[in-house]
Amino acid sequence: MPITYRDAGVDLDAGNALVHSIARLAKPTRTAHVLTDIGGFAGLCAIPPGMKEPILVSGTDGVGTKLKVAFATGVHDTIGIDLVAMCVNDIVTCGAVPLFFLDYFGTGKLSVEVGEAVIKGIADGCKQAGCALLGGETAELPGMYADGEYDLAGFAVGVVDRANIIDGSKAREGDKVIAVASSGLHSNGYSLARKVVFDVMKLELTSRLAELDSTVAEAMLRPTRIYAKAVAALDAALGQDLHALCHVTGGGLPENLPRVLPKGLGAKLDLGTFERPALFRMIQSGGPVEESEMLRTFNVGVGLLCVVASAEVESAIASLSASGERAWVLGDVISRPSDEPRVLFV
Amino acid sequence: MPITYRDAGVDLDAGNALVHSIARLAKPTRTAHVLTDIGGFAGLCAIPPGMKEPILVSGTDGVGTKLKVAFATGVHDTIGIDLVAMCVNDIVTCGAVPLFFLDYFGTGKLSVEVGEAVIKGIADGCKQAGCALLGGETAELPGMYADGEYDLAGFAVGVVDRANIIDGSKAREGDKVIAVASSGLHSNGYSLARKVVFDVMKLELTSRLAELDSTVAEAMLRPTRIYAKAVAALDAALGQDLHALCHVTGGGLPENLPRVLPKGLGAKLDLGTFERPALFRMIQSGGPVEESEMLRTFNVGVGLLCVVASAEVESAIASLSASGERAWVLGDVISRPSDEPRVLFV
Repeated sequence: MPITYRDAGVDLDAGNALVHSIARLAKPTRTAHVLTDIGGFAGLCAIPPGMKEPILVSGTDGVGTKLKVAFATGVHDTIGIDLVAMCVNDIVTCGAVPLFFLDYFGTGKLSVEVGEAVIKGIADGCKQAGCALLGGETAELPGMYADGEYDLAGFAVGVVDRANIIDGSKAREGDKVIAVASSGLHSNGYSLARKVVFDVMKLELTSRLAELDSTVAEAMLRPTRIYAKAVAALDAALGQDLHALCHVTGGGLPENLPRVLPKGLGAKLDLGTFERPALFRMIQSGGPVEESEMLRTFNVGVGLLCVVASAEVESAIASLSASGERAWVLGDVISRPSDEPRVLFV
Repeated sequence: MPITYRDAGVDLDAGNALVHSIARLAKPTRTAHVLTDIGGFAGLCAIPPGMKEPILVSGTDGVGTKLKVAFATGVHDTIGIDLVAMCVNDIVTCGAVPLFFLDYFGTGKLSVEVGEAVIKGIADGCKQAGCALLGGETAELPGMYADGEYDLAGFAVGVVDRANIIDGSKAREGDKVIAVASSGLHSNGYSLARKVVFDVMKLELTSRLAELDSTVAEAMLRPTRIYAKAVAALDAALGQDLHALCHVTGGGLPENLPRVLPKGLGAKLDLGTFERPALFRMIQSGGPVEESEMLRTFNVGVGLLCVVASAEVESAIASLSASGERAWVLGDVISRPSDEPRVLFV
């Protein structure tokens, strides 16, 4: 009997069926700049007019083992929002406007149903970010993933006019550091969070906890907030007074803020300015997890930091609030002469 | 005892060590257009000057279960070339010049040594393609991958002036289809190839076969050819007489060429114009694998197709030969009135 590709575990027909669904789901994300439909060898996108010297800004990320929560709950239609968020929140820190997004979906045995749900989430995330879902790859890799599991990678490209790049170089002593609230764990620290919540505390996904005001599953799967539109509005409101933007991703507050501060500066952040959300407190006491480990593993309630000229604090918070974000002053930029940037907590 | 992120299987320090190596490996790929080093939130890249209306061209891909051959042999420093090739060969079909590349590397337990080897291959691929390794994500996902395994996704962005986009719309009856030789299986059909070679034929990776003039491992791991520079030279030589370019990727000759031909046209390809390389013949008889399944699963020796005006056949082949490629006339573009594009084999 002749052997076929399908015998070897790869179903090209299922792949083609999913491509049709993806094209349908991607359609509403199409922007005026997009030249191609899904399905060609490559995605084509024009550069928005009106820029003197457009600079491309790109980033790639995954969602870590938040995937395992999606697998365990069977809820696959929001993890794509996380994927877009993790990539887009990186590129907007440079002042870029997201242009387009591509995804990689790798799995052992392709389920068209699960694939559609994942791509639906990605398309929803693209709508929130205002970028086009321009392409993607669905890969069926027999024997590489456990049954029902998959991995995701995302790629985002944005554009910023060279004169408007935000790179922290304008930050100075006395600037204010504004915190923008996260929606939960976002997509970092899930290996530790899952270990504490499921292995140590032995909670069930379906348990409804009063302090979380939700089930464990709902709290653990809550989609990562996408800050693209809020940042664009803030950038328009503040202009040159918006000095730096920091995505609080893997490494948390202590490791991310120094990435966008120039040498000679640091930051003093006051963690007493906000109540740490219940899920983080539960993980911290449930582990227990030491405070320093909490801070470098989780966002602890702060998804984005904005460094602004002190005179602009009120208009910055007003702009973020108008975009639907909860924002507050978390601390100050301080001088750290002849020293690498560092965050001090008070 | 407090629990740490490391206890949960994620070693941020190993991740940071790898980022340093990646920065070192990426440095030689840096082009004049790149504005940032590896390690920031995002990669920044300018658009090459001199274009009237630059259009961004992007693609994403993986390398399928060719990965399993890398795992089995412990040879990790060429699979990155495959990753770049699969993405870049997609985007050059539109006439784009590759600008930059990003990678996603997902694994269960991060080995800095394996990670470095993989990234070295990616950097080598970027050099061959003439694009910058602008960023990447290394994700440690405990429990998602088997020990020693990983998945890879790549993402390439190129640029083409709008007037020079190659999209097949200029193809017409009588055009010639030129084949450019592949270097082997490239990165498609590995689930079937592995099933035949290892499960049915029971060959060993270390077996040296006379007909392959190499070991099985060498033949199965041979890096995918990167056509970026050859295509750029061909484009410069032929200009408007280069009508379409087709990457022979998943789906093979019958499913890929129709993607770049306009409605009303098809192609007649003569598989007798070349000797099918030994590895494909071995798989075909070893399976056995039926001819139609061979053609839609493997490239069978042809990695790229160029559709050119018939008057330019000789200069096209001369240009490809000068770029170090083996090229020959494989067939003709034919009329298929009121019909979807299709490939006929003679």
